[in-house]
Amino acid sequence: MCADAALKGSQLPSAARPRRIAVCGLGRASESDSALAFEVGRLVADRGGIVVCGGLGGVMEAACRGARERGGLTVGLLPTNDSTTANPHVLIPIPTGLGEVRNFLIVYAAEVMIAIGGELGTLSEMAVALKNGRRVVTLGSWTLSERPDLKPRPILARTPLEAVELAFSDVA
Amino acid sequence: MCADAALKGSQLPSAARPRRIAVCGLGRASESDSALAFEVGRLVADRGGIVVCGGLGGVMEAACRGARERGGLTVGLLPTNDSTTANPHVLIPIPTGLGEVRNFLIVYAAEVMIAIGGELGTLSEMAVALKNGRRVVTLGSWTLSERPDLKPRPILARTPLEAVELAFSDVA
Amino acid sequence: MCADAALKGSQLPSAARPRRIAVCGLGRASESDSALAFEVGRLVADRGGIVVCGGLGGVMEAACRGARERGGLTVGLLPTNDSTTANPHVLIPIPTGLGEVRNFLIVYAAEVMIAIGGELGTLSEMAVALKNGRRVVTLGSWTLSERPDLKPRPILARTPLEAVELAFSDVA
Amino acid sequence: MCADAALKGSQLPSAARPRRIAVCGLGRASESDSALAFEVGRLVADRGGIVVCGGLGGVMEAACRGARERGGLTVGLLPTNDSTTANPHVLIPIPTGLGEVRNFLIVYAAEVMIAIGGELGTLSEMAVALKNGRRVVTLGSWTLSERPDLKPRPILARTPLEAVELAFSDVA
Repeated sequence: MCADAALKGSQLPSAARPRRIAVCGLGRASESDSALAFEVGRLVADRGGIVVCGGLGGVMEAACRGARERGGLTVGLLPTNDSTTANPHVLIPIPTGLGEVRNFLIVYAAEVMIAIGGELGTLSEMAVALKNGRRVVTLGSWTLSERPDLKPRPILARTPLEAVELAFSDVA
Repeated sequence: MCADAALKGSQLPSAARPRRIAVCGLGRASESDSALAFEVGRLVADRGGIVVCGGLGGVMEAACRGARERGGLTVGLLPTNDSTTANPHVLIPIPTGLGEVRNFLIVYAAEVMIAIGGELGTLSEMAVALKNGRRVVTLGSWTLSERPDLKPRPILARTPLEAVELAFSDVA
Repeated sequence: MCADAALKGSQLPSAARPRRIAVCGLGRASESDSALAFEVGRLVADRGGIVVCGGLGGVMEAACRGARERGGLTVGLLPTNDSTTANPHVLIPIPTGLGEVRNFLIVYAAEVMIAIGGELGTLSEMAVALKNGRRVVTLGSWTLSERPDLKPRPILARTPLEAVELAFSDVA
Repeated sequence: MCADAALKGSQLPSAARPRRIAVCGLGRASESDSALAFEVGRLVADRGGIVVCGGLGGVMEAACRGARERGGLTVGLLPTNDSTTANPHVLIPIPTGLGEVRNFLIVYAAEVMIAIGGELGTLSEMAVALKNGRRVVTLGSWTLSERPDLKPRPILARTPLEAVELAFSDVA
């Protein structure tokens, strides 16, 4: 990451900024979802991307841990106004004081959202992300199959590698 | 910055994270305020700190430019939900979609606020920062002299160097 | 409404407050959805309830129009910081300046959400409402059939009358 | 209030809506500030206005109590996402879940802010209100004397009656 030209250069047109990937899922995640998130975090960092998340445990912590292991940047948008509530793998905590309303900010902050499992909170984030033109990749999360004609819609990935490749590809 | 252990390490107890300094002031700043902000940005980056700001022009842009020149990290909490509205020296744009309500988030996100000049927006940020236990350093900004008994209160600095030293000192 | 004891009494334990019903759906609604919303608004006001909505057009305006026709109170939580953007049937505009983030506030503000048609914005509101223990009644809106085991889940209504009766019933 | 045409009419151009007055001050107010707030609340309701506040104790509760005693409407924008935290004189609780960030919303929601005593929270609200073109009346609160050239600035009132007359006058 440190070798990345983007981190050294002065002027940063949008396209030159590191890509920001939101990784969303439960704060109390299953072991298998945490393992997926960890791998997603590593692969995002390997590509020079920034992991953006809610900064707490479960899927959020696993993604940050993976990214930090590879020297990546991790941003945690916290529900509290207290940076010490961030998991220990968040490099840049952003305490918002907004409670779960901060969920909106997580998906706004990123160019792509990768949803891993998740329940109603993840569903609300997915809906907001799609509504705002963010690409959404689903790894065992909601598919919105109830509305087959809805566009845009979540893209299904079967593995962390596929999810991250979809997140970094230039064509959805 | 890249040599900083904090950026390589995996576990990040709060004390080991790079210090986050909010630099606040007008989006249409005077030349002298912009020069102060530029110097503050450089000095924050030299100490391994992260510049947090509103991501737009004026004082915000000058602080980011200074920090980036020294390889520092810069975070811009934008009023819009569109990362392309960030100034070109913001490395990590955080579009919030919250309008000026994002002013709260700027001071929450940082451990110290340096106010450079500024009008009513800066005053509201200063009040929120003090109320939430953030250290506030004023460089030609509000002093709250109207309430001499108020505690905590802004600390007056005469130069960018003094402001940044106050921002990084362990005792206020 | 004016005869309602709640509006005259001084002390207002929660149970004595007028029930707040969020009516959610598209700002550019179909004629049939608008007709449903109008009828919902009338029936809510007839029962002494308050219509809470996003304050703009379509489903929101139709629900407010129906409620006002029967002398009910209508609250519009606006995305802008400008009360003149409210539709003319909003009695109490609440400009939030939060953009679509105000969608969260609409469902927080109410005890029950009635969803009429709607797309991704309505889906995000429904997910937030369910996550926060609000009763959700769906009138031709999302059913979350994709997760048949999810609890709590939206309750299906076939008519405005059924929707409003579900909204005011004491047992879900 | 119930006799007010605005509450019966169907179409509500902005000018015909009841005037919304934010009453701001400490949640743990002195007896004298609470007495001022109670009187302000009564006078606002007598003129057909709506009291908007943070919904909690102290100045907020006293203002609501005064308004309700005269049959006025009271809106409480709560920091929590739980309407039961509202004081018993709030007719319409709006739980926001935004913590103190909801302070912005209180001043956005009203056309005039009356500040009664108060500390840093009230100062931030006053700054935001002035910045957004709301009229600010100060009853023993901040005067911003530090910047004598600032415009617009708070208008000083000596009594609740003077404050409310300033709030309802058409020329500041």
